[in-house]
Amino acid sequence: MKKLIVNLKENSYPIIIENGLAENIKANIETYLPNFKGKRYFIITNKTVANLYRATLQDFERVVEIEDGEEYKNFKTYKYIITKLLENKIERGDVIIAFGGGVVGDMAGFAAATILRGVDYVQIPTTLLSQVDSSVGGKTGFNHPAGKNLIGAFKQPKLVLIDPKTLDTLDIRQIKTGLGEVLKYSFIEKSTGVKDAGLNNISFSEYLKNLVKTASVAQTQHECRQETLYKNLAAHWEEIIYASVSMKAAVVEKDECEKGLRAILNFGHTFGHSVEKITEYKKYTHGEAVAAGMVMAFTTACKRMLIDREYFNSSVKLIRDYGLISDDMKNFDKEKLYEGMKSDKKVSNNKIKLVLPVRPLEVQLFDDIEEPLIKDSLL
Amino acid sequence: MKKLIVNLKENSYPIIIENGLAENIKANIETYLPNFKGKRYFIITNKTVANLYRATLQDFERVVEIEDGEEYKNFKTYKYIITKLLENKIERGDVIIAFGGGVVGDMAGFAAATILRGVDYVQIPTTLLSQVDSSVGGKTGFNHPAGKNLIGAFKQPKLVLIDPKTLDTLDIRQIKTGLGEVLKYSFIEKSTGVKDAGLNNISFSEYLKNLVKTASVAQTQHECRQETLYKNLAAHWEEIIYASVSMKAAVVEKDECEKGLRAILNFGHTFGHSVEKITEYKKYTHGEAVAAGMVMAFTTACKRMLIDREYFNSSVKLIRDYGLISDDMKNFDKEKLYEGMKSDKKVSNNKIKLVLPVRPLEVQLFDDIEEPLIKDSLL
Repeated sequence: MKKLIVNLKENSYPIIIENGLAENIKANIETYLPNFKGKRYFIITNKTVANLYRATLQDFERVVEIEDGEEYKNFKTYKYIITKLLENKIERGDVIIAFGGGVVGDMAGFAAATILRGVDYVQIPTTLLSQVDSSVGGKTGFNHPAGKNLIGAFKQPKLVLIDPKTLDTLDIRQIKTGLGEVLKYSFIEKSTGVKDAGLNNISFSEYLKNLVKTASVAQTQHECRQETLYKNLAAHWEEIIYASVSMKAAVVEKDECEKGLRAILNFGHTFGHSVEKITEYKKYTHGEAVAAGMVMAFTTACKRMLIDREYFNSSVKLIRDYGLISDDMKNFDKEKLYEGMKSDKKVSNNKIKLVLPVRPLEVQLFDDIEEPLIKDSLL
Repeated sequence: MKKLIVNLKENSYPIIIENGLAENIKANIETYLPNFKGKRYFIITNKTVANLYRATLQDFERVVEIEDGEEYKNFKTYKYIITKLLENKIERGDVIIAFGGGVVGDMAGFAAATILRGVDYVQIPTTLLSQVDSSVGGKTGFNHPAGKNLIGAFKQPKLVLIDPKTLDTLDIRQIKTGLGEVLKYSFIEKSTGVKDAGLNNISFSEYLKNLVKTASVAQTQHECRQETLYKNLAAHWEEIIYASVSMKAAVVEKDECEKGLRAILNFGHTFGHSVEKITEYKKYTHGEAVAAGMVMAFTTACKRMLIDREYFNSSVKLIRDYGLISDDMKNFDKEKLYEGMKSDKKVSNNKIKLVLPVRPLEVQLFDDIEEPLIKDSLL
């Protein structure tokens, strides 16, 4: 079991990481939030998770099931959730539980932010992506045809319960999408100002490289290194998740509502969002798109001589070692990709803001990168 | 010109009350918020206001017009506003201006709270109801078929500009709906803890009674006292609005997110919302419903011997003198009215919470009023 606190004054909350937490949700919530005893819970989940956790859900009278998939992170689902909660007579003292991946977490969190002008909620993320990223930090919301996450609010949960065992049911692509964010943390570690990522004084980047090395040694005749690596990860989820969320927490504590530092969490994302957009959110997972975005960011930084060739090579190698760049990730339509970046919601005064590496494990926000250089760095 | 500050630490903002403010919106905003110079504004208004203020609106490139009326305070309008803002490429540094009555203010405020996870906004209320009540305090949101204001958020504006001259275009019923809230403030003055309501050391209640007396003297053969009273009000709007918002500000400062004291602002509202609900929001304006609700609250308090007969009589008389109780406000279906009260969003643990007068100009929150007593107090 690992525990950390996100310190945000009256909005502070604990994150607990432990195998098996999802098997007994109610008891676990009340262990960490004793004052929640006797409260009424409204659990929001998706059909896939609901089918896997029927036994757990039997503890709850009020379950709202939504469809599984990013394409349901929209107005219609928001309206559906709100209506279900109201039909079940939700009151201000009640608690919403988000039990599922990022879509469930973002939608349930936004419902919690906006129903009756706000009720408490608990995050129980069940995918790697949501465990290392979206369940922590209080970003909630949904997509609009004009772009991702354009409607939303900052609303911190009261508790985050992370059960790495839920990852056993994920397929490779779902793991990969989480690994995109994991690698991101490894590249921004120093900039997050994290005090202790729980890895015995080696950097997260070293830790992840060591896993690749171990996999190289352990690979068998029948298995390539990447397969061995993925198989080995299961024994390391607690450390990987803890390191990731401790960095995210360190950033969020300094910048709850994304007014400054928090921008560094978008490393790889401005490019990545555009990759997702021009491929209509279908071809690549978020993590793969972010991974491609990080490669583009390293390329831009290298061309602008912010980093040296050696750091560039070792970083891109790490992204490739984790299998996040597929062979078809090239020859994107550069005009479209550039236009997509310009429609990102972090754009201001029509200037593209890019987080770029400036030294090993450090990144910085730039808003003065010239159009030709950006286009020249696109995959 | 009158000015007051709502003190909410980093969410503090000024309220300016002055005739003519609405005629030059942009310049007035930038007088009070000089750092807004150069920002892009998105003005949200309704068709009625837009027709009255074409000249003012010419200063703005981006105007979103919604339909006029409470029935448009819904999901569809929210979606419409969000889509229009995104089509016009709103960015995080831009400013939304709510220019209209309560519906515009609540919807524009909620759009500001939730678009791109939050942009700044300015309230320019144009009805008495929104000037004395909804434009101050940061409550934003919209209605759901299950009830009023069930979806929303707390989001404080950066500035409130109140132009009493806009009231010249309102009809009697629109004035009455604002007067319901004005009278409410007069009954809760001491509980708000306001330091100076700007009325030269007489209570707001005395001030309002004096206006009735003056009207009695001034009434002519052709005009009843109430007509004279209404006609005289125009010369007193600045004082009436200032007194009202200074009390609201005093309460909001102590309880920004409605966790305690703010409940007193609901004096008359639990009954009132139910009146609106069972008459399908058509028969009575909000202020009339609140006025009826206040009469019921005085009745409950009197029957429970919280207040004496004399205070009861003088209070109900004041409400009647302002013409807020019409003759058909009786014989409501008591079961329905009671059920409607139970579905109010402030209900918790199925207990009806009622704000009742306990002494002149003081109210208190009760959650232990028995069902028979409540039913017995209904009109």
